[in-house]
Amino acid sequence: MSSSQQIKAVIVGGTGYTGVELLRLLLPHPSVELIAITGRSEAGTRVDSVYPSLRGACDLSFIHPNDVDWQQVDVAFLATPNGIAMRMTPELLEQGVRVIDLSADFRLQNISEYEQWYGESHLATDALSGAVYGLTEWQREAVGQANVIANPGCYPTAVQLPLLPLVAQGLISGDVVADCKSGVSGAGRGANVGTLLCEASESFKAYGVGGHRHLPEIQQGLRAQDQDGLLEDVVFTPHLVPMIRGIQATLHVRSSHSIDELYAVLRERYQDEAFVDVLPLGETPDTRSVKGTNVCRIGLVQAHGTQGRFVICSVIDNLVKGAAGQAVQNMNAMFSLPETQGLAMLALVP
Amino acid sequence: MSSSQQIKAVIVGGTGYTGVELLRLLLPHPSVELIAITGRSEAGTRVDSVYPSLRGACDLSFIHPNDVDWQQVDVAFLATPNGIAMRMTPELLEQGVRVIDLSADFRLQNISEYEQWYGESHLATDALSGAVYGLTEWQREAVGQANVIANPGCYPTAVQLPLLPLVAQGLISGDVVADCKSGVSGAGRGANVGTLLCEASESFKAYGVGGHRHLPEIQQGLRAQDQDGLLEDVVFTPHLVPMIRGIQATLHVRSSHSIDELYAVLRERYQDEAFVDVLPLGETPDTRSVKGTNVCRIGLVQAHGTQGRFVICSVIDNLVKGAAGQAVQNMNAMFSLPETQGLAMLALVP
Amino acid sequence: MSSSQQIKAVIVGGTGYTGVELLRLLLPHPSVELIAITGRSEAGTRVDSVYPSLRGACDLSFIHPNDVDWQQVDVAFLATPNGIAMRMTPELLEQGVRVIDLSADFRLQNISEYEQWYGESHLATDALSGAVYGLTEWQREAVGQANVIANPGCYPTAVQLPLLPLVAQGLISGDVVADCKSGVSGAGRGANVGTLLCEASESFKAYGVGGHRHLPEIQQGLRAQDQDGLLEDVVFTPHLVPMIRGIQATLHVRSSHSIDELYAVLRERYQDEAFVDVLPLGETPDTRSVKGTNVCRIGLVQAHGTQGRFVICSVIDNLVKGAAGQAVQNMNAMFSLPETQGLAMLALVP
Amino acid sequence: MSSSQQIKAVIVGGTGYTGVELLRLLLPHPSVELIAITGRSEAGTRVDSVYPSLRGACDLSFIHPNDVDWQQVDVAFLATPNGIAMRMTPELLEQGVRVIDLSADFRLQNISEYEQWYGESHLATDALSGAVYGLTEWQREAVGQANVIANPGCYPTAVQLPLLPLVAQGLISGDVVADCKSGVSGAGRGANVGTLLCEASESFKAYGVGGHRHLPEIQQGLRAQDQDGLLEDVVFTPHLVPMIRGIQATLHVRSSHSIDELYAVLRERYQDEAFVDVLPLGETPDTRSVKGTNVCRIGLVQAHGTQGRFVICSVIDNLVKGAAGQAVQNMNAMFSLPETQGLAMLALVP
Repeated sequence: MSSSQQIKAVIVGGTGYTGVELLRLLLPHPSVELIAITGRSEAGTRVDSVYPSLRGACDLSFIHPNDVDWQQVDVAFLATPNGIAMRMTPELLEQGVRVIDLSADFRLQNISEYEQWYGESHLATDALSGAVYGLTEWQREAVGQANVIANPGCYPTAVQLPLLPLVAQGLISGDVVADCKSGVSGAGRGANVGTLLCEASESFKAYGVGGHRHLPEIQQGLRAQDQDGLLEDVVFTPHLVPMIRGIQATLHVRSSHSIDELYAVLRERYQDEAFVDVLPLGETPDTRSVKGTNVCRIGLVQAHGTQGRFVICSVIDNLVKGAAGQAVQNMNAMFSLPETQGLAMLALVP
Repeated sequence: MSSSQQIKAVIVGGTGYTGVELLRLLLPHPSVELIAITGRSEAGTRVDSVYPSLRGACDLSFIHPNDVDWQQVDVAFLATPNGIAMRMTPELLEQGVRVIDLSADFRLQNISEYEQWYGESHLATDALSGAVYGLTEWQREAVGQANVIANPGCYPTAVQLPLLPLVAQGLISGDVVADCKSGVSGAGRGANVGTLLCEASESFKAYGVGGHRHLPEIQQGLRAQDQDGLLEDVVFTPHLVPMIRGIQATLHVRSSHSIDELYAVLRERYQDEAFVDVLPLGETPDTRSVKGTNVCRIGLVQAHGTQGRFVICSVIDNLVKGAAGQAVQNMNAMFSLPETQGLAMLALVP
Repeated sequence: MSSSQQIKAVIVGGTGYTGVELLRLLLPHPSVELIAITGRSEAGTRVDSVYPSLRGACDLSFIHPNDVDWQQVDVAFLATPNGIAMRMTPELLEQGVRVIDLSADFRLQNISEYEQWYGESHLATDALSGAVYGLTEWQREAVGQANVIANPGCYPTAVQLPLLPLVAQGLISGDVVADCKSGVSGAGRGANVGTLLCEASESFKAYGVGGHRHLPEIQQGLRAQDQDGLLEDVVFTPHLVPMIRGIQATLHVRSSHSIDELYAVLRERYQDEAFVDVLPLGETPDTRSVKGTNVCRIGLVQAHGTQGRFVICSVIDNLVKGAAGQAVQNMNAMFSLPETQGLAMLALVP
Repeated sequence: MSSSQQIKAVIVGGTGYTGVELLRLLLPHPSVELIAITGRSEAGTRVDSVYPSLRGACDLSFIHPNDVDWQQVDVAFLATPNGIAMRMTPELLEQGVRVIDLSADFRLQNISEYEQWYGESHLATDALSGAVYGLTEWQREAVGQANVIANPGCYPTAVQLPLLPLVAQGLISGDVVADCKSGVSGAGRGANVGTLLCEASESFKAYGVGGHRHLPEIQQGLRAQDQDGLLEDVVFTPHLVPMIRGIQATLHVRSSHSIDELYAVLRERYQDEAFVDVLPLGETPDTRSVKGTNVCRIGLVQAHGTQGRFVICSVIDNLVKGAAGQAVQNMNAMFSLPETQGLAMLALVP
């Protein structure tokens, strides 16, 4: 399966849901040779004994990061808890490894904001200043040149893709209310009472209402496009949905422009994008229509009985377009591969 | 179990989820004798053969409405599809039966609005003009006198209970964004593809974004309290959650008052109410905390990083406080019983 | 709510699912005053901050077991991990406290079997020899006299109730295959990866196939009634179902007697029991028909196309009849109360 | 995408779950050109308006079967209700179309058994006599030559794959208890009350205990290999699991041979099969490990404390290996393609 022209990739921190999703995407990727997957606590354990779904598809065992021969590695996917990537990245860069960080370490360019939300000083400010925020559809060229990709958060991906075209053209103004809902896999594979089936199923709740780390990331992205300063507050309210995968962002916005004008901008902006699908006007998507895929599907509706109030619904699979899939999309862009390579799967419906 | 002082009750249209929930609440109610339950298509069938959960608790069979001896009936719960209650109610009233209508027929006082949303002329405008909108905590005295109760819709209950105290005191202004989420039982027990387990589980979606019948009901309630006309648009966006029971309303509002002031108003308004529970400031509820109960639980939070933007989360069990439970609460009020009688059950957690 | 004639009860180890279910049943019980609930790690925390569903219904905080004034306690419900009850019980008995143990400590009368399955010596063999196995329908009189009740395991309850009448009359012979399925709450509220929503939902599996601690308990119960030694092997295969509550035992048995004869024995044995419901011949129950209730519902069917092979399906709510409900039923029997007191709730359907 | 050497395929009856699953597998299949999909009631409707998950991947609209130009078709997948295939197949064969029937019409070679279970005479006995039962691993050569494939039922696939090697070698005897569990998608996409989310989630039940159409299919398969008549009764008990996809068969068997001997036979039989995975001895699979894939995963365990009683657990995705996937596998075999072509996807976990 390997060839000298294949990309030599390593997954760092592969025991969580982002890790196994990277495995699902990278193992069959025609241009990738996965040469190692690391996991400190699981070092020595076969990957397919942790994930029997990979039996027959993966002969690797988890190894300690120190045991990777980084010299031969082209790209590292960091699926580690926040704070690890900024410690590892400088050394990886020195060894010529390009980094796609799926954690939050390189997402916020404002260091004091990083410190406020993540509780420690940033330890890799040089790498940070060169890092590209990998919302691929908006940074394609920069991604191609980058050595460090900050792979966007799941909520920020679902929120920004539909809003950025409208904000960039100055079409919306006032508050943005981003009422967002995520499946439980967004909380990771850690053993927590709150995400037990008996706690999280047959229930629905808001969480982090008083402040969530994805808020500054969303604000950073929207503000960068809001050249005339039309936006006021961004209210971001995440909720936990009793399902495994999927995010829906319900975006309540105001505009003095017509719905047809807003719709035309969305359609035109994304008509050539493989992974962003704008529904017919007035339709709204369900999360299962993107389950297991790298697609963001967007619907636009006028709020009934109002003038100038619009509802935009956006859905992604949080583990794919919201994490591992967008990371692979970025890798494709970095290595000049077709951006859809290895990402053309159809949703698992039902 | 029967006595001459017990309330003689009938459930009309008892084969749906509201019907079986009324059975769960009325069968053990100490002041009620359930003398009949009607169901046209199921007439003759034992109730406990449709709902084996009631084996040993219910000896009734469904009968045709014409076969009820209405002369001996004190109160009828109409759990019928929209349009039936306005046809049945005048005759029931003539026979001295008080009516608690769980459908939408008597909720909208504005007839043209009714016709716009429900697609036919209102056929019982006299009864309508005497009907009381049974949001019990706000209409207790009128409920006690009424012969026709319009039992509120599930979403309108979850939306109005937290907002009315604030609106009544003129504390919020501008738009109200009511981003609401409901379990699938809200769609009823009809055989529809969209609510099959394979269609509705493991997915999340908005629906009715372009207009939902609960919007005018919410507007009617809020506007009645908004004496200074401070509110602008009400944006109501319902979503379907992959669970059986529960509604969460996430209410995004603006206020120039402090959160402490808003909170004090909510606490004070509901401190003596058995079925409305205001959480400690900054906490938000989950729907399972009210599963199977008649409680509405409310949390208030300031949107992070904003001035004057607040998020209020409100949860109910759509089949209880959002339907059958509030109906029984109204019956208790109509017949001068303790309002909590038969409704003191604790939530089924987990 | 309290009176001098009420039973003074304490829940020991109240932070798990059995504990909160005991709260749901004991708080509204008309003959019980719950005077304390213990929880070492949660001592000092209000119960309703851990379980907001109990807000308004419970003013207690968790306390350390040493802080209970045991002199005034009539009965203690031990909802502790295995191994604790046998350490606490002798001292409780000395202080005149009757014990209902919901763990496994007093279920196996054979000490060596206990040691084999639970990995340590039994430390309270005197208490064990006086303990009554509290399958109430089969030990009613002994329960009334007992000071120590071994509350049966969830699977053993679902398996024994339908089989014991048949075994006692020598009607079945050969192997018993007990293919059992449990909701996830049977695994408790511990933070384990295996019972996360993302691991346990949308999946089904067998577990403990090589040996489960409920097997010797089932064998002990069946063998005690199998006076002619007609039974051969008992094969017990538990499975995990992606739902919160409920156990179904599918029992595959052989008999040379007719199905009508088997059915008559089941019907007659349980016709006067409030909590055991034998369905019409040929019908099988679903677990939701007993959700939240203390009922065991049983169906009997002949395996198609066979002679002498029968399938018995039995369902319970594992947290009620399989744990807290049966414990309360036993308490009622111990204190000469009507056995259904506090346990007459109807199932939450849907 | 099309080429003259591609297989021209048609899906007949494409609006159900088997139909959309065939679309998921055939649209990206490198050797297939899907030229039409039929659906009488949906004729004229775009496929991706019924299944938005296929937007961008499928430009077809449903058409009426009469509007297919069958002359150019190589293979038809019949995903129709029982009784249609036997009416259509003779004509399709005349026009040179090879048929893969996913319904039950060609599964039972015994016509009287067919009539007993399906309630009408068989109308295509010639086609039936030439039909090959497409359990690919057991009929590979015959499948390659066949013009009519009877694609096996979901339960029979999960039951036969693990049992056939043992039966064929005379290693098991006595009764076979096949206690089987299926996700709800097995019941199809019809609008039935019983498979509503509110009816089927948070519950578990047996169904069809008195007789299920897959029983004669299982018996036919086992008896064909049971040359010494060692088997006695086959007890088949299906259950409904509150999840979308997946079947687990728990097979309780007796053998006088050692577990090592049984295990060796299973391992050896399937070691070269791409789609059958025998787990290490003593491990049992979960259904999610095969979700979305064509794999059957098998585990073998000795029942604790017994001699000669064994439990075999087998899992498949009922829509893939139990339906559409096995159909594509059969198509690959029919057209001399690598059997795994288009079927190499990894399971969607979590």
